[in-house]
Amino acid sequence: MDHALRLAGRGLGNVWPNPAVGCVILNGGRIVGRGWTQPGGRPHAERMALDAAGALSRGATAYVTLEPCAHHGRTPPCAEALIDAGIARVVSAMTDPDPRVAGRGHRLLRDAGIAVTEGIRQTEAFGVQAGFVLRILRGRPFVTLKLATSFDGRIATARGESRWITGPAARRHVHAMRMIHDAVMVGGNTAHADRPSLNVRGLSTPRQPVRVVLSSRPLPSDLPPEGPSHGPLWRLDAPPAEALAHLAQQGITRVFCEGGGGLAASLLSAGLVDQIVGYTAGMTLGGDGRPAVGPMGLGHLADAPRFRLADTRAIGTDLFHRWLRLP
Amino acid sequence: MDHALRLAGRGLGNVWPNPAVGCVILNGGRIVGRGWTQPGGRPHAERMALDAAGALSRGATAYVTLEPCAHHGRTPPCAEALIDAGIARVVSAMTDPDPRVAGRGHRLLRDAGIAVTEGIRQTEAFGVQAGFVLRILRGRPFVTLKLATSFDGRIATARGESRWITGPAARRHVHAMRMIHDAVMVGGNTAHADRPSLNVRGLSTPRQPVRVVLSSRPLPSDLPPEGPSHGPLWRLDAPPAEALAHLAQQGITRVFCEGGGGLAASLLSAGLVDQIVGYTAGMTLGGDGRPAVGPMGLGHLADAPRFRLADTRAIGTDLFHRWLRLP
Repeated sequence: MDHALRLAGRGLGNVWPNPAVGCVILNGGRIVGRGWTQPGGRPHAERMALDAAGALSRGATAYVTLEPCAHHGRTPPCAEALIDAGIARVVSAMTDPDPRVAGRGHRLLRDAGIAVTEGIRQTEAFGVQAGFVLRILRGRPFVTLKLATSFDGRIATARGESRWITGPAARRHVHAMRMIHDAVMVGGNTAHADRPSLNVRGLSTPRQPVRVVLSSRPLPSDLPPEGPSHGPLWRLDAPPAEALAHLAQQGITRVFCEGGGGLAASLLSAGLVDQIVGYTAGMTLGGDGRPAVGPMGLGHLADAPRFRLADTRAIGTDLFHRWLRLP
Repeated sequence: MDHALRLAGRGLGNVWPNPAVGCVILNGGRIVGRGWTQPGGRPHAERMALDAAGALSRGATAYVTLEPCAHHGRTPPCAEALIDAGIARVVSAMTDPDPRVAGRGHRLLRDAGIAVTEGIRQTEAFGVQAGFVLRILRGRPFVTLKLATSFDGRIATARGESRWITGPAARRHVHAMRMIHDAVMVGGNTAHADRPSLNVRGLSTPRQPVRVVLSSRPLPSDLPPEGPSHGPLWRLDAPPAEALAHLAQQGITRVFCEGGGGLAASLLSAGLVDQIVGYTAGMTLGGDGRPAVGPMGLGHLADAPRFRLADTRAIGTDLFHRWLRLP
């Protein structure tokens, strides 16, 4: 299942509105097929793994990071495909919350005489597929907030100089983060002040992320148009919660927010940030520098949104740290 | 020498105005004596190690983290003691910058026919003994700045609520940091607002750090007086550079600055911070919260003081990170 989860991760950012699923087929202790959701969402992971396994699927065990689908969508249901291929046992990490599936996939398999084990590595599977799950259950995407700051939490000097606070290795890492999200989002002030490209550069990606600007003002006219190196450009004039709901309706499952301070504060205040990735540079800019998070109007410490540390390491000359929301 | 450096660290915070030195004596591949500067500065590390080794010092090799002293101070010079004990070889990490020594210790040893190797683990030895070296060469102590902040660099909410941002494990770690510094320093506003105790609690320490408040105002009357659980309380009414020079004259080699934002900004702007220790909590307080570093009036990123990451790990629920000044 760990292997299947790693395969699932390959689809992140490329498969929306579908979940990024991984599948490994074992026959006699040997891996005979591996699959993951392909760019655009199909073929599904199970289809890819079954095709690789061919006749060796008969009597084999399939490990899947999400309950196989049971509905006829753009592709025939994976549950049927597993049955037809003669799979003997299915180990699944979690139930698909999609109301068109929601246990029907597992039931189809069991009705066909396949042994099904559910809930293996459920937490990890939720971690990889959180964007899809949140979109289905809460009607909003998974939101990662990026904060690339000086040691004292600043994103620019008082005069607005901001390039570059973090080093080249951290900036490359940001492109890798963009790549595993469906959309990259900034506020209107950032769009106007920085004219950010919001695309993935220096890395090969099958699908550029959608560029989302939350702004009541028209977009700057010199932002690059959609094309091979730039995703669609959407301007949304709505409060963050409404904008995220709209993005979920469009199929977006994972959003990477790159500021500025006002949007970061709104998202945090509304409890809409699921993950924070911090890149902290070894410099201080002082209290007159521009803050990474705008005013939140918090009276008490107890009201502050809280996160738990999931990862920390050096990236180049900067400190990388990743935090996940506390329930 | 690595062993001797670890022993040297035991003296940090307890031996000012002396350097924290470590000494290991090897005879026939066996450790026969170990020593480190004792609380208050004497006996010296060499004396302690020689006493432990006794007759086994004859023909042995002594590893010392600093050149043995050559002057008659409160104790007879260690170079003479090593000669008298019949030590055959001395390996030393660095020359003592003290003008009363400054190579004379090594020379005394060589004149007595002892083989001397210098400069082994010099960088590491400088790291441990930096406070002493800076005091001698620059007339100021080594300065560590503590920043215990929210994710976005805040030390209190807009209303001033600050207890607690970091968790109990990080706060215990702060006491361990106080213990390895000679003095703990805060600005006047922090002294009045927080009434901090600035002592070492929950850890056994032979010597409480000196409490230093940089303020033009009289001290709050309810700060605890000097006693077994509180070090001396000094108020200094001077700009940071002058105050640090005064502390060095008093023999202080290592200062731990715990804020507030104004003092942190002054020290950083003046290039007087040698090390930053950060404790970052998994919460955000917003741009209206109180900043850990006050206004610095920086125009350009190139003017910002810079540090390199030396260490990062989780401490309890918080992120700990340590940075050293870049030359």
